[in-house]
Amino acid sequence: MNAQTPYRLKSYICGGWQAGAREGAELRDAGTGEVIALIDASGLDMAEALAYGRSKGAALQAMTFHERAEMLKALGKALDAQKAEFHALSLATGATPRDGMVDIEGGLHTLFAYSGMGRRELPNSRVLTEGDVQQLSRDGSFVAQHILTPLNGVAVHINAYNFPCWGMLEKLAPTLLAGVPALIKPASQTAYLTELMVRRIIESGILPEGALQLISGSVGDLLEHVTAQDVVTFTGSASVGRMLKAHPKIIADSVRFTMEADSLNACVLGPDAVAGTPEFDLFIKEVSREMTVKAGQKCTAIRRAMVPRAQVQAVTEALGKALGKMSVGLPGDEATRMGALASLAQRDEVRARIAELQADAEIVWGDPDEVTVVSGDAEAGAFLNPVVMYCDDPLGASVVHDTEAFGPVSTLMPYDDLEEAVALTHRGKGSLVSSLFTNDPKVVQAAVIGMAPFHGRILLGNRDSAKSSTGHGAPLPGLVHGGPGRAGGGEELGGIRGVKHFMQRTAVQGTPALVSAVTGRWIAGAPAQNDGHPFRKSLAELRIGDQLITEKRQITLEDVAHFAEFTGDTFYAHMDDAAAKANPFFEGRVAHGYLIVSFAAGLFVQPDPGPVLANYGLDNLRFMTPVYPGDTLGVQLTCKDINPRTNSEHGEVRWDCCVTNQHGEVVAQYDVLTMVAKVWPS
Amino acid sequence: MNAQTPYRLKSYICGGWQAGAREGAELRDAGTGEVIALIDASGLDMAEALAYGRSKGAALQAMTFHERAEMLKALGKALDAQKAEFHALSLATGATPRDGMVDIEGGLHTLFAYSGMGRRELPNSRVLTEGDVQQLSRDGSFVAQHILTPLNGVAVHINAYNFPCWGMLEKLAPTLLAGVPALIKPASQTAYLTELMVRRIIESGILPEGALQLISGSVGDLLEHVTAQDVVTFTGSASVGRMLKAHPKIIADSVRFTMEADSLNACVLGPDAVAGTPEFDLFIKEVSREMTVKAGQKCTAIRRAMVPRAQVQAVTEALGKALGKMSVGLPGDEATRMGALASLAQRDEVRARIAELQADAEIVWGDPDEVTVVSGDAEAGAFLNPVVMYCDDPLGASVVHDTEAFGPVSTLMPYDDLEEAVALTHRGKGSLVSSLFTNDPKVVQAAVIGMAPFHGRILLGNRDSAKSSTGHGAPLPGLVHGGPGRAGGGEELGGIRGVKHFMQRTAVQGTPALVSAVTGRWIAGAPAQNDGHPFRKSLAELRIGDQLITEKRQITLEDVAHFAEFTGDTFYAHMDDAAAKANPFFEGRVAHGYLIVSFAAGLFVQPDPGPVLANYGLDNLRFMTPVYPGDTLGVQLTCKDINPRTNSEHGEVRWDCCVTNQHGEVVAQYDVLTMVAKVWPS
Repeated sequence: MNAQTPYRLKSYICGGWQAGAREGAELRDAGTGEVIALIDASGLDMAEALAYGRSKGAALQAMTFHERAEMLKALGKALDAQKAEFHALSLATGATPRDGMVDIEGGLHTLFAYSGMGRRELPNSRVLTEGDVQQLSRDGSFVAQHILTPLNGVAVHINAYNFPCWGMLEKLAPTLLAGVPALIKPASQTAYLTELMVRRIIESGILPEGALQLISGSVGDLLEHVTAQDVVTFTGSASVGRMLKAHPKIIADSVRFTMEADSLNACVLGPDAVAGTPEFDLFIKEVSREMTVKAGQKCTAIRRAMVPRAQVQAVTEALGKALGKMSVGLPGDEATRMGALASLAQRDEVRARIAELQADAEIVWGDPDEVTVVSGDAEAGAFLNPVVMYCDDPLGASVVHDTEAFGPVSTLMPYDDLEEAVALTHRGKGSLVSSLFTNDPKVVQAAVIGMAPFHGRILLGNRDSAKSSTGHGAPLPGLVHGGPGRAGGGEELGGIRGVKHFMQRTAVQGTPALVSAVTGRWIAGAPAQNDGHPFRKSLAELRIGDQLITEKRQITLEDVAHFAEFTGDTFYAHMDDAAAKANPFFEGRVAHGYLIVSFAAGLFVQPDPGPVLANYGLDNLRFMTPVYPGDTLGVQLTCKDINPRTNSEHGEVRWDCCVTNQHGEVVAQYDVLTMVAKVWPS
Repeated sequence: MNAQTPYRLKSYICGGWQAGAREGAELRDAGTGEVIALIDASGLDMAEALAYGRSKGAALQAMTFHERAEMLKALGKALDAQKAEFHALSLATGATPRDGMVDIEGGLHTLFAYSGMGRRELPNSRVLTEGDVQQLSRDGSFVAQHILTPLNGVAVHINAYNFPCWGMLEKLAPTLLAGVPALIKPASQTAYLTELMVRRIIESGILPEGALQLISGSVGDLLEHVTAQDVVTFTGSASVGRMLKAHPKIIADSVRFTMEADSLNACVLGPDAVAGTPEFDLFIKEVSREMTVKAGQKCTAIRRAMVPRAQVQAVTEALGKALGKMSVGLPGDEATRMGALASLAQRDEVRARIAELQADAEIVWGDPDEVTVVSGDAEAGAFLNPVVMYCDDPLGASVVHDTEAFGPVSTLMPYDDLEEAVALTHRGKGSLVSSLFTNDPKVVQAAVIGMAPFHGRILLGNRDSAKSSTGHGAPLPGLVHGGPGRAGGGEELGGIRGVKHFMQRTAVQGTPALVSAVTGRWIAGAPAQNDGHPFRKSLAELRIGDQLITEKRQITLEDVAHFAEFTGDTFYAHMDDAAAKANPFFEGRVAHGYLIVSFAAGLFVQPDPGPVLANYGLDNLRFMTPVYPGDTLGVQLTCKDINPRTNSEHGEVRWDCCVTNQHGEVVAQYDVLTMVAKVWPS
C-alpha cells in the first residue's frame, strides 16, 4: 500500500472478493495523513449476501460445539502466526504497538477464550440444554426442557473504527460457536485492517465457506433484507445506532438488535483513598491510562472521575504529573506513549465536544488547541494531547454527564458523600463500566448495589489486586460487556451467555421419551436398556439409557457404627439415638450420607479393568429420605449424557444415580461423573 | 354495575383512585351488548405516576427475595378467597366459567408458582448472583461475579383484552419478585375485571404502597416519560406493538421493551398418527379445544394445522364432528360450550380476516355469517361459531401464514413429507408455540430441531402424556412464553429467567474480599475467621467466612483395602496396581473418591449435639488430584452462604469444602449443604 496507488478494499460476499462500483472514499493514515486505501461497496447485492450466508448456515449447524470450538482455536493459531503483518498495518490507525496489542492480541485472546469455554462448558453435540428437566405432572409422564438451537440466519455485525480486529473477533467468536454465519461491516476509517485479517481468515480455509462475509463500505439497503432469524449488532455512535434500531424492517420483523454505544463511564475515588494511600495512586494510574490508551478512543474509557472534594487538588496535580509523561507522536516511534486519533475529522469532533463541556467545566490540564508532538507533523496527523476538565457543581451540571468526547479527555467532579458519588454515576444514564477505588469493604457495600442497576460492569480497585487487576477499560470474554440506557441496552460476551445471543431458546414439552429424543440426554422416565453392565461398554458401545439395576444391600446399625469409627465421622445424628430424635429431621440414629453413597458405589461398580477409567466427581447430590439401620438400599444407575472429547481417547459420561429404600422411596439422587475410554478391547 | 348508571372505572395512581377528566367510552357485556362500564384516563398525570412508582421502589428493594415470594403467596391467597366475585364479572367478557378459570385460577397459579420458585431457587437476600465466581488471575487475588439487582424504575405492562386477570398477574409476579414496582394498563375492552382485581389487591394491603398502579384508559403521553431504568412490556396486536417499540423515547433511552404479538401457531399431525391411532384423536381434540377455548381468542391458539395429505379427509370429518358439539351461547348458560368474542367489533374483525384467508383457503366447516346459539341474542352478543378452513397448496400460499383471525378459526394444510411440514411451521415467521402429535421418537428427532429456531415453545403430544399434558395453548410459569419474529421477539415467564427481565446484570470485578462484600457470599481468598468450630454456631452467631482448618489424616493402603471390602467398591483402580497404572489418570492404586469425602467429613464434623441439624447434600464435587496410599489429607471448611428460611426455625448453610494433600494440592473441592438451627442454647 502506498499513497501513489491506493489499494481498493474489497468485500468478501457470496464466496468471492468483490470491489464496489465506484473508486471509493479515501482512507488516510492517522499519523501522517497519507491516503492508504479506498473504500466502496456500492453496487454489491446485499440481499444476495444475506441469502448466501443463510444458505451456508447448515455447514456450521452440522458441527458440534466442540468442533466449532476447535475451529476457533485453529483460527486463533493461524492468525497469531501472522500477527506481525496486522501490527504493521495497525500503526496506520494511529495505534501504538501497545494499543495494537489490545486490538490484535486482545482479539485473538477472545477467540482462544471462547474456544476454551466451548470445550469446557458446552456439550460435544448440537443441541444445548438449559436448566433442569422440569416435571410437569405428578406421574412423571410429562416433562419439559429448555433447549437452544442456532438461528437459521446471519449475524450482521456493524462495528466501530477503534478496534478493527478485536471488534470483529469478539463478535465472531460467540457467533461461530453458536453455529451462525457472520457478515462483518467494519467502520470505514480503519476497515483496511479488518479487510486484511478477513483475507487471512478466508485464505486459511479454516472456516466453512459462507461462515464469514465482509462488507468494506456502506451496507446500502442490507437492513431492508434482514429477517427475524438474523441478528444485527451495532457498536458505534448512539445517533447511528438509534436510527438502525428503529429501522422499519428491524421493528417489523422483531429482528434481534444489540447496540453498544456512547457511555460516560465513571471512576470513583473512595472516601478512604486519600492522597498517600495505594488506592489513590492506583486511581491516578487508571484514569491517566484510560485517557491515553488508544488516545482515549475506547467505549469503556473513563469520562468522569468522581473524587472527594478534599482530594480535588491532590488529584488534579497527580493526574497532571502522570499525563505530563504521555508523549504524543507517531505511533511507530519508540518515544511515543500516545498515538494519534483515528482521523483529523475525529480530532475536530473531540475539540467540538470539549468546547461543549466547557459550559459545565473548565480545563485544568492540557490545551486542546495546542498540539505538542515528539514525532510527526502536529497538523497533518490527528494528534491531540490529553485534556483534564473540572466541574465544580456536578449535581447541577448536565453537559458533563451527557457529552462524550471520544478522545483523551476526562472530567473531574467533586463529591461530598458517598451517596452523592453513587448519584453522580447514575447521571451517566447507563454505562458500560464504572470503577471504584477503595480498600474499605464497607464503602464497597454502601456503593456497589446502588451503582449496579446503571452498569454492565463494575471494577473494584485496591492494593491487593494492583498487580492482577485487568483494569477498568478491559472487556473480558467471560464477563458481560454492555450497559443499560445510554450505553445501548445491549449485552455482548459474558461467556456462554454471548453464544446464546445467536440461538433461539425453546421450551420443549412431552413425555420423557420424546423430550429425550430431542436433547440426546436421558431423562428419568425415558426408556432404558438393561443389557449387561454399562461399565463394560466403551463409548463406541455405550448408549444413552443404558442402565444397571443393582442388587440390594441392608444397612445395619453395625455398619453405621463401624463407618463412624473408621472415618471419624461421629456426628450425633449417627451415634446418639436421643439426640437424633430431638433433631427435627430424624426419628432416631441415621446412616451417614457418605455411607449411603459409598455403599451405592459398592453396589454399582464393576470391579474388573474396563473402559470406565475414573470417577471425577458428583453433581447435585441430595439426600431425600433418611436411611435408618435396617433399611435396604438398591441403586438404579443410568447413562444420562455422553460427551466424547475431541482429540482424546476418552470422554465424559454422566450417570443418573438413584438410590431407593425398601419402600421404593428415593433416599439419594445424584449424577456420577466418569471418564470412559472411546474403545476397549472386548 | 348495570346498564342504567354505568360504573366509571378508576385508575389507581400516586396512591389514590382517580377518575379521568371525561365521562369515558362505553364498555359492553360481550354476551348481551349491555353497557356495563365507562372508561377514561384523560387528564391523569402519567409523568407523575411513573415518578411516584420509581420513588416507591425502595420498599420492594428493601425486601429479600423470600419476603417478596411470601408476599406473592399472601396475595394469591387473598385473591383466591374472593374469586367468586371475579368469576361473576368474568362472564361479561364473553368467557365461560371454564374460560374464566384459565384467566382467574391461571393467574393465581402463576402467583403461587413464582412464590414457590422464589423460595426454592432464589436466596433469602437482596442480591442475586449468577454463574460461578470467575478466577481472573493465577494468584487468586482478582475475581469476578455476575450479580443482578432490581432496576430503579417502573415496569409498565400494557396488556391484551383476552386475559384481564392472568395477563396482569403473569407479568406482576416476576416483576414484584424482582423488586420492581409495576404500572398496569389493561386493554379497555375488559379493563373492568382488571380494575376489580386491582381494587381487591390494594384493599388487601399486602403490597407496599406504590408497588402497583393501574391506568384504566389510554396511557396518553406515558411513553414520553419512560427511562432506561423502566421496562415496557406489551401484549396485543403487532401493529400497535411495533408503534410502541419504535417510540422515539423507547429508542432514544434504550428502554427495555418486550412484545408478545400475533402468532400463527401451528399444530402438526405426525406421519405415523393416522386415523385410528391415539395421536390422531389427541390431535383432533387439541385443535378443536384450541379453536374454542376463549372462543379462540388466545395468542397461543392453533391457527394452522398441518396434516399428512392422506389424512386430510379423515381430519376434516373428525374435526367437524368435534366442533359440532361446541354449542355457542351466553357464557353463564350451562348448555354453552363456547362463549362470545370480546365485542361485536372483534367479531367484525374476525369475519374480515376470514374473508382475507379465503384468498388461499376455502371454508370446509362452519359459516362465519350464520350464527347459531343455544342462548342469548345472536346479533346483540358477539357470537361466532367455529370455522375450519382448508388450504390445498400451503407452500404456494401466503395469506394463511400471515393473517391471524383472532377467534374460533383454524386452517388445515396438507403436507407430503415431514420436511415440508417443518418448512410450513417456519412460514409463520416466528411463533409462540407449535405442537407435534406423534408417537415416533424418530419423527420427533427429525422435526423438532428444525422447528425450534422459529418457536418459543414446542409441545409433543402422544398417548403416554394424553392425561398429563398441559396442552398446546397453556403458557406455564416455569417455561418461556414468547417467540421470535412475528410473535414479537420477546420472552416472558420461563421461571426465574422472567424475574431477571426486571433486573440489571452487572459483572463485578475485584479482590475476593471486595467482591464478597457485594454478594454477601464467601469467596475463596476472602478473609475468614477461625474462632471456634463453626458447627457450634447457630444462624444467630454464624457469619460468612467462619472457617475450620482441620487436623491431618494419612490414608493408608489398609484404609483403601478396608474401605473396598466394607463398601464392596472393589473397582480395579483401587485394588489392582498394574491395572491402575495402565489407566491414563493414575500412577498406581488410588483411594476411592468416596473414601476421601468420608474421611474429610470425619475431619470436619463436630460430633456433639448442636445447631447443625443435617447434611442434606453436596454440590459440584470434583476430584482434582489422585490420592495415593501414604498421602495425608487436611480440610478447610468455610461458611460460604447462609439462607435463613422464613417461617422456619432453621436455614440452609452452604460450606466451601477444600481437601488438600501434603503438598498443598487440592484433591477434592465441593460444597457441603447443611440445615442449621436459627438459635441454639449455648
